[in-house]
Amino acid sequence: MGNYTIAVLPGDGIGPEVTDEAIRILDAVASRFGHSFTYQKRLVGVAAIEAEGDAISDASLEVCQRSDAILFGAVGGLPSYDGSHKVKPEQALFKLRKGLQFFANLRPVKPLNSLLSASPIKAEVLRGADLVVVRELTGGLYYGHLEPPVPGKPSEIRQTEQGKSAIDTLLYSEAEIERILRVAFEAARDRKKKVTSVDKANVLSSSVLWRQVANRVAADYPDVTFEHMLVDACAMHLIRKPTNFDVIVTENLFGDILTDEASMLAGSMGMLPSASLGTHETAHGRLGLYEPIHGSAPDIAGQGKANPIAAILSAAMLLQYSLGLKSEAAAIEAAVEQVIQAGYRTEDLREEETKVLKTQEMGQKIAAVL
Amino acid sequence: MGNYTIAVLPGDGIGPEVTDEAIRILDAVASRFGHSFTYQKRLVGVAAIEAEGDAISDASLEVCQRSDAILFGAVGGLPSYDGSHKVKPEQALFKLRKGLQFFANLRPVKPLNSLLSASPIKAEVLRGADLVVVRELTGGLYYGHLEPPVPGKPSEIRQTEQGKSAIDTLLYSEAEIERILRVAFEAARDRKKKVTSVDKANVLSSSVLWRQVANRVAADYPDVTFEHMLVDACAMHLIRKPTNFDVIVTENLFGDILTDEASMLAGSMGMLPSASLGTHETAHGRLGLYEPIHGSAPDIAGQGKANPIAAILSAAMLLQYSLGLKSEAAAIEAAVEQVIQAGYRTEDLREEETKVLKTQEMGQKIAAVL
Ligand SMILES: CC(C)[C@H](C(=O)O)[C@@H](O)C(=O)O
Ligand SMILES: CC(C)[C@H](C(=O)O)[C@@H](O)C(=O)O
Repeated sequence: MGNYTIAVLPGDGIGPEVTDEAIRILDAVASRFGHSFTYQKRLVGVAAIEAEGDAISDASLEVCQRSDAILFGAVGGLPSYDGSHKVKPEQALFKLRKGLQFFANLRPVKPLNSLLSASPIKAEVLRGADLVVVRELTGGLYYGHLEPPVPGKPSEIRQTEQGKSAIDTLLYSEAEIERILRVAFEAARDRKKKVTSVDKANVLSSSVLWRQVANRVAADYPDVTFEHMLVDACAMHLIRKPTNFDVIVTENLFGDILTDEASMLAGSMGMLPSASLGTHETAHGRLGLYEPIHGSAPDIAGQGKANPIAAILSAAMLLQYSLGLKSEAAAIEAAVEQVIQAGYRTEDLREEETKVLKTQEMGQKIAAVL
Repeated sequence: MGNYTIAVLPGDGIGPEVTDEAIRILDAVASRFGHSFTYQKRLVGVAAIEAEGDAISDASLEVCQRSDAILFGAVGGLPSYDGSHKVKPEQALFKLRKGLQFFANLRPVKPLNSLLSASPIKAEVLRGADLVVVRELTGGLYYGHLEPPVPGKPSEIRQTEQGKSAIDTLLYSEAEIERILRVAFEAARDRKKKVTSVDKANVLSSSVLWRQVANRVAADYPDVTFEHMLVDACAMHLIRKPTNFDVIVTENLFGDILTDEASMLAGSMGMLPSASLGTHETAHGRLGLYEPIHGSAPDIAGQGKANPIAAILSAAMLLQYSLGLKSEAAAIEAAVEQVIQAGYRTEDLREEETKVLKTQEMGQKIAAVL
């Protein structure tokens, strides 16, 4: 029976529709468990650029920082995007991640038994898969382009005598690698006790350092099985034998690619939540940002086709990780499973003999079960 | 009825076994079509490091350069590899690719109908898939670590006051991007006339430049359908709807990851050949390096478990691209298809009601059909 403040950033495209449903579910949780959630809604992405001149204003960032948790929809992904805009909607994400030091991005992938047939992967390959990707979120090739540029970490297009040339810099310090590895090993202890560290150590210096640090951290967790895997091999094994994985830990861009790929195990990106965590403590736990891993999907925005479950499960992760409300989180997960089990789907998961609901109807169904 | 010189670099692990079978097939082609192939065998990888002190000697490089084509097995992939060895077997690959300017790596993926059931992906998703990944092979995050280091393109581990820090540099010039895009568009004209250019333009400056150049090149090919796709989205769509793709063109590391993933469409990496091409002209055509995309697989080396088909199909690509022998290449492909169709498999493709052959037996079967 607590009082919590949640910053809400619906964003672009389908962001607002799916966030509305996540809030519907949080409200259902509040009334069932006797909590009170105060929502602080702020602009982010294109709407913020148009109204406030920035992808996220400093005032909004502060609201986020003072909240107990942040619920995020989606930004960017405009089909016309070619990198020439001055302010990019994605900068909101970068500012939040970097500004609030959310260095650990947790992306769990656990295909529901009643959704196995929705995946392009065969059911017998999927059955029993239950993994989480721990993606480093504040380093690597990202952030070089933020203003002001990070010294020694250029990301720019240069004019040379032979035409243009472009550069990006992949940078990792021992400390950055160590803290994300520790998150992975701690997570593994609560799970199947296996960590797969993914890198490209046969090519990248940053991966050679990554491997050295990973070996050192692994020595502190003798109870956890540990292995290295090259990123190309991982992209293959992830669909060849997903049940072999428990916790996958990797650098920023590899994590970005591998989690989109892994989303296919769950049948649709529309099913997959994420949590971004740092070290900032609140009165109730750890500040975190929670967002569906799908993007803004402008092509289906406003049509009731979006699957709100990724946003709803992100709200469940919010309850668990930032507010410490484990039973409440479990209740949401159970409600989602029950509704899917009963044959209800959104457009992305349309199959024969299922009942396809609109975004809002799906939210209502799940709320009703709660 | 020509005379051709082929440099043969079997390398490490299963490299020699599968290369032997590729040669068996080339010999069968020679006698059926009346050609004569002279093989120049050279050491590469671990064997070369031990015998010659380098992953590939300058003398061997020269043999390659003077040949009509290069047949390559595999190097590296030692399970104990942690990046601390002085000379790495993979440097042979880097030296060949960079030294002979093989900037375009072609990796076709076309699942055989009789192998659809061997893939972790559902047959109905796979049916009709036929794509080629055109991977840039001499730029990007690779090569920064070669001695001497490329100026302005560091790849190194540095000692700082706060511990170690590692850096890699992703660099592309307009000219490098343009030439690989042209390879992709030319390839598309001979195929289904569609190019998907894959980048991460919402994060990387190099991808923003990539997109600009790609748009410019695309304007020269109005008959080819053209689209951009973010690399994370591509990792998803590749298994969600592989039939949507024709030619995928992308930078070095993205291509490395996406092709290993795409190999699962074909049931096994053991099925997938590749060609690396540059601008070096020979008496018969263009010099190229041909290698299976699988690695050295030391865990199964010497046991007759390796699938020689990737090497055999690489030999077919060699005939087609470097020697201009199209019917000969087609004959090999047909023979492979016939043997698979008849139910013969290697260990990697074991399924009920198939006959599993050893590496050599598979080579013999295919040769017999030829
Ligand atoms: C929108 C984009 C910048 C972002 C990323 O690359 O991190 C997205 O793909 C994600 O995975 O959250
Ligand atoms: C062995 C390794 C360096 C190589 C690469 O990354 O290019 C391999 O994975 C490949 O795809 O040819």
